[in-house]
Amino acid sequence: MAEDHEVVVFGVWGSAYSRRVETALKLKGVPYKYIEEDLSKKSPSLLKYNPIHKKIPVLVHNGKPIVESLVILEYIDETWQEGYSLLMPKDPYQRALARFWAKFIDDKCFPAIVKACWGEEQEREKAGEEAVELLKLLEKELQEKRFFGGENIGMVDIAANVIGFSLGAHEEASGVKLMTREKFPKLCNWRDDFMSKSAAIKKDGPSEEEFISIVRNYYRKK
Amino acid sequence: MAEDHEVVVFGVWGSAYSRRVETALKLKGVPYKYIEEDLSKKSPSLLKYNPIHKKIPVLVHNGKPIVESLVILEYIDETWQEGYSLLMPKDPYQRALARFWAKFIDDKCFPAIVKACWGEEQEREKAGEEAVELLKLLEKELQEKRFFGGENIGMVDIAANVIGFSLGAHEEASGVKLMTREKFPKLCNWRDDFMSKSAAIKKDGPSEEEFISIVRNYYRKK
Repeated sequence: MAEDHEVVVFGVWGSAYSRRVETALKLKGVPYKYIEEDLSKKSPSLLKYNPIHKKIPVLVHNGKPIVESLVILEYIDETWQEGYSLLMPKDPYQRALARFWAKFIDDKCFPAIVKACWGEEQEREKAGEEAVELLKLLEKELQEKRFFGGENIGMVDIAANVIGFSLGAHEEASGVKLMTREKFPKLCNWRDDFMSKSAAIKKDGPSEEEFISIVRNYYRKK
Repeated sequence: MAEDHEVVVFGVWGSAYSRRVETALKLKGVPYKYIEEDLSKKSPSLLKYNPIHKKIPVLVHNGKPIVESLVILEYIDETWQEGYSLLMPKDPYQRALARFWAKFIDDKCFPAIVKACWGEEQEREKAGEEAVELLKLLEKELQEKRFFGGENIGMVDIAANVIGFSLGAHEEASGVKLMTREKFPKLCNWRDDFMSKSAAIKKDGPSEEEFISIVRNYYRKK
């Protein structure tokens, strides 16, 4: 049984959110068993482990479930700490900033991107302008750093995979262009760097074309 | 200047969110300077310290701003740790649960309560049923504990002040009843206990009547 493994991840192959959890575990070098969920027919295990939200990703560690991708990332960081690379900074103020930006990406930035690409036609333009303004804040936050986490991929980089990993596919599938290299040189460089590092970390994710097709199918049906 | 103080809180007297920050600081015994904001005319300091969201509460510690009430609570807990009472459990799994429930309260529970009390008339009944289902999950989570944090007020209790502190006022001001003692005996006991402990911690908050009036004025205008 999958539950006999020490660490189990329930996810969906094309989901940026389960990819967050897998990226964190791979960065730490923690072995895990991955279980692919079919969201149109959720497994009894998923419903047992996440009865409230009934969503992926779920991390099950020694039989105990943790849900919500950002909560899982902090759990992973706190559980595999000594001798492992860290996702969060050590300084409380830098930790607060990391939590702020991760929340900003999930609560503000990504919803604006989705609305700009897939919202009602009359609201798309305004949502697009808003998304660009929010992306500008991330561009500014990168400063001269290679990653949001500094020299290494950290919490905010992994959270920002919905931009690094997904934004291009949303743009391609919807025909809406938000992040040009001209306006966002730092963020585009970060994306290139993050994507290649992330692909090296997690080798079996969807290709760019496959991901565009996943995004197109998912949002067109909505 | 207020900024010369080591710890400054920008808040609004009747806000459950700035009350979260003040409760945490008072529980820790950390002295602070409180600055009341007028949200209809935000101060240059608030806009300087929270240029992205332009919202209260803001905690400024040695000149550095932290925003988002749950992010601030974790910052306070990590900054004043040795020799101070703790808001978060020490065990990573219990910490993940605390983060999960705090997020659940902010993302699911409180929005459902507001919709049930102040939404469009045709959506109120359904929102009310949803709010009751969500509150049942909190009732269940309390188990036989005195507080969500166990014997002492912790992170989840402080986050749940939007229920302990605000739900009664929303019910009274809107005429919608969601949390009866019959259906929610544990949550009602928790509220009584939390409210009296919280009133002892922070003595200068609004009275019940004043808070009902604040809620009524705020949501009727919306």
